Amino acid sequence: MPRNPAFSHSEYRARVDKVRLAMDAAGVEVLFATDPSNMAWLTGYDGWSFYTPQAVLIGPGRDPIIWTRAMDAPGGRLTTWMGADHILSYPDNYVMHPDRHPVDLVPGLLSDLNWAGRPIGVEMENYYYSARMHARLAAGLSVAPMDATNLVNWCRAVKSEAELVFMSRAARIVEAMHARILDTFAPGMRKCDVVAEIYDAALRGTPEFGGDYAAIVPMVPTGDEAAAAHLTWDDRPVPSGTGTFFEIAGCYRRYHVPLCRTTWLGKPPRDVAAAEAAVLEGIAEGIDAARPGATAGDVARAFYGALARHGVEREGRCGYPVGLSYPPDWGERTFSIRPEDETVLETDMVFHFMPAIWMADWGLEITETLRVVEGGPAEPLAQVPRKLFVKD
Amino acid sequence: MPRNPAFSHSEYRARVDKVRLAMDAAGVEVLFATDPSNMAWLTGYDGWSFYTPQAVLIGPGRDPIIWTRAMDAPGGRLTTWMGADHILSYPDNYVMHPDRHPVDLVPGLLSDLNWAGRPIGVEMENYYYSARMHARLAAGLSVAPMDATNLVNWCRAVKSEAELVFMSRAARIVEAMHARILDTFAPGMRKCDVVAEIYDAALRGTPEFGGDYAAIVPMVPTGDEAAAAHLTWDDRPVPSGTGTFFEIAGCYRRYHVPLCRTTWLGKPPRDVAAAEAAVLEGIAEGIDAARPGATAGDVARAFYGALARHGVEREGRCGYPVGLSYPPDWGERTFSIRPEDETVLETDMVFHFMPAIWMADWGLEITETLRVVEGGPAEPLAQVPRKLFVKD
Repeated sequence: MPRNPAFSHSEYRARVDKVRLAMDAAGVEVLFATDPSNMAWLTGYDGWSFYTPQAVLIGPGRDPIIWTRAMDAPGGRLTTWMGADHILSYPDNYVMHPDRHPVDLVPGLLSDLNWAGRPIGVEMENYYYSARMHARLAAGLSVAPMDATNLVNWCRAVKSEAELVFMSRAARIVEAMHARILDTFAPGMRKCDVVAEIYDAALRGTPEFGGDYAAIVPMVPTGDEAAAAHLTWDDRPVPSGTGTFFEIAGCYRRYHVPLCRTTWLGKPPRDVAAAEAAVLEGIAEGIDAARPGATAGDVARAFYGALARHGVEREGRCGYPVGLSYPPDWGERTFSIRPEDETVLETDMVFHFMPAIWMADWGLEITETLRVVEGGPAEPLAQVPRKLFVKD
Repeated sequence: MPRNPAFSHSEYRARVDKVRLAMDAAGVEVLFATDPSNMAWLTGYDGWSFYTPQAVLIGPGRDPIIWTRAMDAPGGRLTTWMGADHILSYPDNYVMHPDRHPVDLVPGLLSDLNWAGRPIGVEMENYYYSARMHARLAAGLSVAPMDATNLVNWCRAVKSEAELVFMSRAARIVEAMHARILDTFAPGMRKCDVVAEIYDAALRGTPEFGGDYAAIVPMVPTGDEAAAAHLTWDDRPVPSGTGTFFEIAGCYRRYHVPLCRTTWLGKPPRDVAAAEAAVLEGIAEGIDAARPGATAGDVARAFYGALARHGVEREGRCGYPVGLSYPPDWGERTFSIRPEDETVLETDMVFHFMPAIWMADWGLEITETLRVVEGGPAEPLAQVPRKLFVKD
């Protein structure tokens, strides 16, 4: 993974052009994007610096600007494509200060760039654009900021060839992670030691390429904990006669391929086996429905229709687009695989098809990350046997 | 780590009482706290669910309420102390929806709890309280929300005995992590494989207790990358003749002990050795200054004064309080160790004293997590030799 940056300059320029078109359509002349995934996708910027304010600015007449804390400017120079003069920063005495806020300096920055007074778009719904940041930015501008949430995210939905190469590597990594679980998981093992095995496979990757950190840590609940969707782990031994689901992703240079499987230690109860049959049928029908021109809703309806034939009532969200991400979410937060979502699927969109069943005292997750392809059903990026694993 | 929850009910009640006093002082009758660290500290709630809206509500006449996405309610019941009737939730069709927002349901929730119309405090500066969330909540309330940023965080500054036990376990874990680095790190090793060793030590912990995920992933830049503060890792082999700093933390049940060391593969250049001497002297003087009644600024001035005697000019922030945290930051975001911060240190405050020097082509980090104690200099929680490590 040489730094500086992950993709070719022409790929980044094509991404910026796509965003400029979306900005034109939205009437946004200057974009102030704080989502670290959007920042990295547009510029290559990579670093765990998003816990202090930072942004990419796109406006007329120049390449994107990265704006960070002063101590992160060297990281900006090392990881982006635009050149050192496109890395601007604010001093450290603005960081986590009771009175000063880095965003107080943005109106001056916009003036320096000759962008003052232009319609500006901000990402109102983002982990890295706080309510205070917005209030203070808005107070310092002569025009009210427009809500440009997901403007860049939507541009990321269809993956490039180069991105698909990264995702195929993430797929090899998640295959290795599940192989490791199957190999090592056994009754009596402490959950933290199971997670150590998962991280080891995730990070070592293959001899050709190593793994990056996923935007979500492994979620690996056992028994009645598995009725809860988002528990992580503890250090208790895993008892036999229980099911554990493994919600994990392979990650290569910030590109994710999530894939979940469930493993039963001992013989699974009859209702779990019945749920497995329903879910497998639903996944197959969902995959078959996921074609260019079909909608996200079509995929969800195919899945829930199969479940209903098995007498399983479930509704809601069973998937979301994935690709480049930073914590706390590996989803892209644009469309959802749910019956009411009429987003039209296009070739080379990639989404995590995540049908899961959480009952009162167990949970079952068997999922696939799918690439939408021309002329056929969607293609799973990773090859992991699609079933409930049982270790007796 | 049995769930349900991490501490005794009386400890949680004492925390809630402390927060109620701070609310009274601030004129806040209902607190809507979205910081997952504050939520966990008050209720025990633990899960990687903070990427969708959630909060703890504290108001008159009842124990705290946890409000989450419906699929996270079982996790709430499994990890908190208040009882199932204190876990309220919103339906999944509000999640990441283009029009609906979960916070639209909060005014109705406040009415149901008989808290409508009361002065409400929100955490304006938090990763998990977006600009949109605030705008929509404010639009639905008859009173303007007050900014209660850090109200709970300040209550967390002085650690309880039970918290210090957890932190001593995190200290044992970070000691094991650095021992592993010293044991395995060598020229030619891929950086991702070094990180795999670090995670393995962090998660396996000790035979008595295992490790949790830290709120920040390892930052381990090498050579000129180490001039950048927050780079993570890649899969290139580490060349000899370079310095690498390891910014890592041990974590036990969400309690962090960060501790950084720098390792040189081969003989360090003379300017690095000179910087080591200056930093070690500065750390010792900072530790000696960190006593109950002294200020955060006193500690910073002691450190920078020692650097200045060695001809090293540096300023800014060189530390922050730590304890219970969720991504993306293991700091508590209240006070800072910097010359202008006049926060008075109290017994059993814990902070990461993080003097670092980042030069154009190398960086040096040698840090300690310190507990403020009665009648003496602060005590480092972990015992890792305080020096530049050199592996020839």
